[in-house]
Amino acid sequence: MSLSKRIPVFLLRLLALGASVSATVVMVTSRDSAEVFNMKFDAKYTNSPTFKYFALINAIASGYTLILLFFPSKSSCGHFILVLDLIIALLLDSSISACLAIGQVGKNGNSHAGWLPICGQVPKFCNHVTGALVAGFVAAVVYFLILLYTLHNVMNLFTFNG
Amino acid sequence: MSLSKRIPVFLLRLLALGASVSATVVMVTSRDSAEVFNMKFDAKYTNSPTFKYFALINAIASGYTLILLFFPSKSSCGHFILVLDLIIALLLDSSISACLAIGQVGKNGNSHAGWLPICGQVPKFCNHVTGALVAGFVAAVVYFLILLYTLHNVMNLFTFNG
Repeated sequence: MSLSKRIPVFLLRLLALGASVSATVVMVTSRDSAEVFNMKFDAKYTNSPTFKYFALINAIASGYTLILLFFPSKSSCGHFILVLDLIIALLLDSSISACLAIGQVGKNGNSHAGWLPICGQVPKFCNHVTGALVAGFVAAVVYFLILLYTLHNVMNLFTFNG
Repeated sequence: MSLSKRIPVFLLRLLALGASVSATVVMVTSRDSAEVFNMKFDAKYTNSPTFKYFALINAIASGYTLILLFFPSKSSCGHFILVLDLIIALLLDSSISACLAIGQVGKNGNSHAGWLPICGQVPKFCNHVTGALVAGFVAAVVYFLILLYTLHNVMNLFTFNG
């Protein structure tokens, strides 16, 4: 890939790094407590396997993006990196969807299953999780754009030669 | 793409069609009822927005796959179809992750949030949802394979010509 084609990918990766680091930090630091019926109730991300999964995936995405930013790969690795980008995009997509599903129950509850909403009791926790979700969503969209851009470059060559 | 390269994609799409149709049908027909404290409790997929989302995405994936199977595209649409395949893979991935997150709460509950597990009361419903998730997972994996196969073909050309 030529330098002029590398710069947009570099900038997109920088944006993805910022977003995924923010998502991890905001999720990990989300914490609130409430007293319900004289029982102290601590809300933190480790209470839900889904929120732990979200933090883990965003940390992995941050590490992966950091490595690619500071150790630019040889052109011959393009195939391999495209597949890794695809896997990271799928993982980010999966972590956000899972978190959104749980967050929706946290916000609105589910009367059919008898699950009460908890955001009224621990608003600070819910706001933090919402922030983390927005940052994670940005990271996922940026990875989708990186994929589209790479495919566009590869396929143009394909059309040109084929 | 030559005929010998089209056949594996055709077979993979056939498998994806079977899996996504099964996922939709199994999810939509999942239903069970239980009596808790003399209150009749009906479990069905429309009780949760996440399960409705899962059924919708799998129906969309089925329709899309069906169209591609019976109206084979021209080679010039390759670019466009690769991007559509990517979007379908991301949507399937997202619907399964969201359903898994809710299913995990349905099975184990979440003691911190006071959400009780419901699978003990409505086992038939939970088994149906599990079946739908397995079928949806197969569809997502098959779409991932379709993407890898297409990228492999495109990138090989890239290496050969570049």
